[in-house]
Amino acid sequence: MTSKTKSQTPGAGDIEQLLARRRQFMGSQLYMFYDPPLHLMRSEGVWLYDAKRRVYLDAYNNVPHVGHCHPHVVEAIARQAARLNTNTRYLSDEVLNYAERLTATLPAGLDVAAFVNSGSEAVDLAWRMAKAHTGQHGAIVMEEAYHGWTDAVDALSPAGKAERALAPHVRMLMAPDSYRGPYGPEVADRAMRYASDAERAIESLNAAGLRPAAFIVDPGFCTNGILEPLPGYLALIFEKMRAAGAVCVADEVQTGFGRIGSDMWGFGVHGVTPDIVTMGKPVANGHPLGVVVTRREIMESFMSRTSFFSTFGGNNVACAAGMAVLDVLEREQLQASAQQVGEHLKAGLRALQRKHDLIGDVRGMGLVIGVELVTNRKAKTPASKEAKRVLNLMRDHGVLVGYEGHAANIVKVRPPMPFKIEHADQTVDAMDKALRAL
Amino acid sequence: MTSKTKSQTPGAGDIEQLLARRRQFMGSQLYMFYDPPLHLMRSEGVWLYDAKRRVYLDAYNNVPHVGHCHPHVVEAIARQAARLNTNTRYLSDEVLNYAERLTATLPAGLDVAAFVNSGSEAVDLAWRMAKAHTGQHGAIVMEEAYHGWTDAVDALSPAGKAERALAPHVRMLMAPDSYRGPYGPEVADRAMRYASDAERAIESLNAAGLRPAAFIVDPGFCTNGILEPLPGYLALIFEKMRAAGAVCVADEVQTGFGRIGSDMWGFGVHGVTPDIVTMGKPVANGHPLGVVVTRREIMESFMSRTSFFSTFGGNNVACAAGMAVLDVLEREQLQASAQQVGEHLKAGLRALQRKHDLIGDVRGMGLVIGVELVTNRKAKTPASKEAKRVLNLMRDHGVLVGYEGHAANIVKVRPPMPFKIEHADQTVDAMDKALRAL
Repeated sequence: MTSKTKSQTPGAGDIEQLLARRRQFMGSQLYMFYDPPLHLMRSEGVWLYDAKRRVYLDAYNNVPHVGHCHPHVVEAIARQAARLNTNTRYLSDEVLNYAERLTATLPAGLDVAAFVNSGSEAVDLAWRMAKAHTGQHGAIVMEEAYHGWTDAVDALSPAGKAERALAPHVRMLMAPDSYRGPYGPEVADRAMRYASDAERAIESLNAAGLRPAAFIVDPGFCTNGILEPLPGYLALIFEKMRAAGAVCVADEVQTGFGRIGSDMWGFGVHGVTPDIVTMGKPVANGHPLGVVVTRREIMESFMSRTSFFSTFGGNNVACAAGMAVLDVLEREQLQASAQQVGEHLKAGLRALQRKHDLIGDVRGMGLVIGVELVTNRKAKTPASKEAKRVLNLMRDHGVLVGYEGHAANIVKVRPPMPFKIEHADQTVDAMDKALRAL
Repeated sequence: MTSKTKSQTPGAGDIEQLLARRRQFMGSQLYMFYDPPLHLMRSEGVWLYDAKRRVYLDAYNNVPHVGHCHPHVVEAIARQAARLNTNTRYLSDEVLNYAERLTATLPAGLDVAAFVNSGSEAVDLAWRMAKAHTGQHGAIVMEEAYHGWTDAVDALSPAGKAERALAPHVRMLMAPDSYRGPYGPEVADRAMRYASDAERAIESLNAAGLRPAAFIVDPGFCTNGILEPLPGYLALIFEKMRAAGAVCVADEVQTGFGRIGSDMWGFGVHGVTPDIVTMGKPVANGHPLGVVVTRREIMESFMSRTSFFSTFGGNNVACAAGMAVLDVLEREQLQASAQQVGEHLKAGLRALQRKHDLIGDVRGMGLVIGVELVTNRKAKTPASKEAKRVLNLMRDHGVLVGYEGHAANIVKVRPPMPFKIEHADQTVDAMDKALRAL
């Protein structure tokens, strides 16, 4: 439509030419996984195929929650896209049926849903709801938390930022990290000790003339390096936050929809019920959808003060996709499978730990597991360079994993939910080979 | 999955029962079009079908840009969803091909694209880019502007808010409204006069210790009541804003993709080139997608300061849907059609104006047209109640339109792009009948 020069479409295998086009049309600084990166063409279940028809076991992506291109989800999207796709200014069955079914998976009291298009939007909306409902304007999050990228949510995401760069309305809590934190497994009352950091954060806000509107937490503490639940910790924190007038938000973008095995939702394993739940990534298997579920009084006090409306939020196709994900979760009993396969995987990785000094710790729940690499088990020196090499070596062995933690030394295994025992074994085997080859 | 009570799925026609379920699962205050609202079941091209199989001409929705459920777009979504849907941490052809083709529709200099999931996210990202690039923190927007709902973008959207409720970093410009504003068509230098408001806004920011990071404008001035371009106005504003160090953002969520007929982009008709362009609603025919296109130096300075990444942004399916929209726009020559049908429609509405005193003004470009209703042509008293009745009466005659403007007295005609001469005639006829029946 204009006279701009058109680049040649390159041959499928030409990574350098693709990277040049990427710099040309998307800028030079967009981060990529693996070196060299993968040029993907096709996917199915737990498998990804590149342009050279090489197959990779996907042990990393949680967005294709019930498996890449699951036929039931694809069919739901195709059918609904051909029939009707509009907004919630009209009545339509898809959004009502989905809102009813989704809220039914949550504890009583978490009864009403609002629909948006991503996890970032869900947390942004939760934050607006919290401020409107409480009339307060401070926020408390975990150190190293990441909740999304919108301007407001970026401010609530200390990951990768220096503490002095924190917005003036945000305070961080020390992560309840029994491996690296000041209170290890030998400290019997460590839940109480970690939780005492809440008073400091609340008082620090108060000293700045602020009170907390929201406490926001990923119940899997993934960006803190994937921490196993510390019994009682989150209940204590919720109690203190509510006493300060804040609402408690569980960001289930990482842990939700059965991934942790023992519970449908990450907060369940902590024995708490949040005031707001935010959902993203896995909710519709990669179709853009974000959801906020909350208590009726919070929704009403927010909506009575605003005219919130998301054009695409709650569209018929996204709701059909979300519904199909719930169908597959039930039919294929993926939560129970995540529990079983996750235990097997963790046992396999712990066996590796006995063979390789580099593995300092193995932890996680269900199908979200972290393998912390350290160059010295006593000093727990982060093995960041080694972790990067392990990722690339495992890729060479046909298994894709990621990393986590602020030193990027924790190998992250967080596969699609139809990950079976044999896939867990293949992952352990590839990691074993990678660690031997270091 | 829990013991919550399941409501009965109602018969298709039971609006009251659907409304009760909506209150139960989505809250009581979500605004709906029309009274009683429509219960939609199916759509095709410019037609919507309700649960009673009644058919409506859609003269309002711009999201299904190339027509509801266009088979080419549906096929692209279904094909890609079955093949691969992942993120931009990997190389994939769909996002590169789409970024190249989309940027080629824009003037030289607007060369790089970032992908998100909605217009709100696009404006939120543009705002972050503007702040990062300029190092400034103020914003200037039009009075009554609406750019989206995220926390940051809500602050940039004065629509529906009292002036005292504006955020301290935001200033508004007087709309260049030749019908209602202080300078009418009889004032030869009115572009200069309206544009002089920019100095006031910039100085007001300066007085608060702020400088503008961004000026954000919808080139169709839709929430100002859909204003026709005032020649020279936007060029003057851009000049002043750039002199103050701001970047200029064209929010093409309403006017983009050929809707205004004469140009592919709304800014084109004003003879200006923005620094950032934001896209939403029509970009992928209702599949959630938002895009920010900007100058290379702005993208690089933003990305060098942040680690921005959108999980769903630039996913293969959304890019395939966006590409299919560009295909249909070209093949069916919908921009030229919007120009021709838009002129015919405007002429028909102006003929109605001669018959009905209630119509104070008819204005717009291409297929975005406003019909301003007034109870007194001299005093220009907004006919808000009448506009609401006209909407419902036209619905009874099988034609769906909306409203616009802070007094909600401007009937908005903004149909899908395959709107033909006969659909324009049907719309004019339905409005004639509605006005007679008032």
